[in-house]
Amino acid sequence: MRILLQLTYNGANFQGFQIQNEGRTVQYELERILKRMHRDFVRIHPSSRTDKGVHALCQYVHFDTHLNLTADKWQHAFNSALPDDIYVTAVRQIPEDFHSRYHCIGKAYRYKIYQAPYRDVMKTGIETYYPHDLNLELMNEAAQAFLGTHDFTSFCSAKTEIENKERTIYSFQVDKTKDGYDFHVIGSGFLYNMVRIMVQHLMDIGQGKKNAADIPAIIAARDRTAAGKTAPAEGLYLEKIYLTVEELAQDIPPGTKIITKNNRKALTTDPGML
Amino acid sequence: MRILLQLTYNGANFQGFQIQNEGRTVQYELERILKRMHRDFVRIHPSSRTDKGVHALCQYVHFDTHLNLTADKWQHAFNSALPDDIYVTAVRQIPEDFHSRYHCIGKAYRYKIYQAPYRDVMKTGIETYYPHDLNLELMNEAAQAFLGTHDFTSFCSAKTEIENKERTIYSFQVDKTKDGYDFHVIGSGFLYNMVRIMVQHLMDIGQGKKNAADIPAIIAARDRTAAGKTAPAEGLYLEKIYLTVEELAQDIPPGTKIITKNNRKALTTDPGML
Repeated sequence: MRILLQLTYNGANFQGFQIQNEGRTVQYELERILKRMHRDFVRIHPSSRTDKGVHALCQYVHFDTHLNLTADKWQHAFNSALPDDIYVTAVRQIPEDFHSRYHCIGKAYRYKIYQAPYRDVMKTGIETYYPHDLNLELMNEAAQAFLGTHDFTSFCSAKTEIENKERTIYSFQVDKTKDGYDFHVIGSGFLYNMVRIMVQHLMDIGQGKKNAADIPAIIAARDRTAAGKTAPAEGLYLEKIYLTVEELAQDIPPGTKIITKNNRKALTTDPGML
Repeated sequence: MRILLQLTYNGANFQGFQIQNEGRTVQYELERILKRMHRDFVRIHPSSRTDKGVHALCQYVHFDTHLNLTADKWQHAFNSALPDDIYVTAVRQIPEDFHSRYHCIGKAYRYKIYQAPYRDVMKTGIETYYPHDLNLELMNEAAQAFLGTHDFTSFCSAKTEIENKERTIYSFQVDKTKDGYDFHVIGSGFLYNMVRIMVQHLMDIGQGKKNAADIPAIIAARDRTAAGKTAPAEGLYLEKIYLTVEELAQDIPPGTKIITKNNRKALTTDPGML
């Protein structure tokens, strides 16, 4: 049977989600527990492979198992063995044709920056320090230029290996917080470093270093060097993963056309209900 | 000349202040920078040697140097070379007979716990998770039993090597926060694990597992096993270090007699003003 885990992790002390040659990874921690339980290797499949230092408030992974445990027992088995910076928030059995990556039809990311007279050591690794003043209105105006379906070559790492760089942005909002700004973006999917490059570009605009009006031309250039630098990983949170059209429709402007990728039919009901 | 640094650090990824055989320490990070600047080893002396995992909102260290730099240049030299989890907040030249440890006449610690349906991975290492309900009034009533000068053998690690276990507690207050409790204690000094054992004991009282009325007898027992366990390091913050009688007098109830240890005359003015 196929099991879906919903989990959260603090990325500060991980080399990212995916197993690397060296360093702690989220995948390693989960597969280590599964291996002990099954006395055999069990592969997990995430909805998203977050980078080094990136946090997840909501991530999904699925795996196949012959063990017949209740959701509560699975959750306890993981949480009692996981380190303090990963926590399994929910467990459900799902249909065997459900895939956490292929059935993901959208993701929401949040990017947190704080302003202060000097770096706050207690926020190290979990928020980005940015001392400069930013123009909120300019950033929000500029963010709207990303909406819709575009080839985001200019806004992803030059190392991106994937061929199809077309993605759809459903909403992009910058909010003032108590001591800084939150950038909140929802899209069909995001390329390597894409959120961090868009955020840094908006911060440059908010600081008056770049013009909001230039974004369409920068997108059209399909050239990484046309856009701004890459904001640090520590402020980035994978906030939500959309596995159903209903969930996604609730969080984006009414009437927005939802793209379901790979021509797969997206689930129309919560997989936990199946 | 003698230089005093005021610094702050996030203890989550340190093996404590003092250099150990293995692992990152705050002392190592500071002495590494001084060695590079002096092309020679320069020893630093802290006001307090915080344990593994304990944070400092305010710590002092002093060192002697033949380099003639302004306070700004010293601060920049450190902050541009220190890792993100240490920050030098102020630098002053001080008299050569001033010693950051011997002239410390008091310390304030804060202990932070949060309550939630489950562990918050973003608070890992920086606050202690405690899901149980606590009685604030009972904890505050019990905390008053620690005030005054006592032999704190029952409330320090059995591994404490120091002979004289007499310390003076000037104030002890428990506050309700947005999502938990803050324990705030000011004393002449604290023994090994002393704050963490007192806090855990108060938490046990707040949960109805121990009685406030028993504290005087537990102190009198001079036996570590008479008191509660040791609360985790991650919630503990060295919040303030008092180098002058004036500073300490401001933070404790008016008229409280201040003990100056080692018969040394405590500074009566801010050392930065000398």
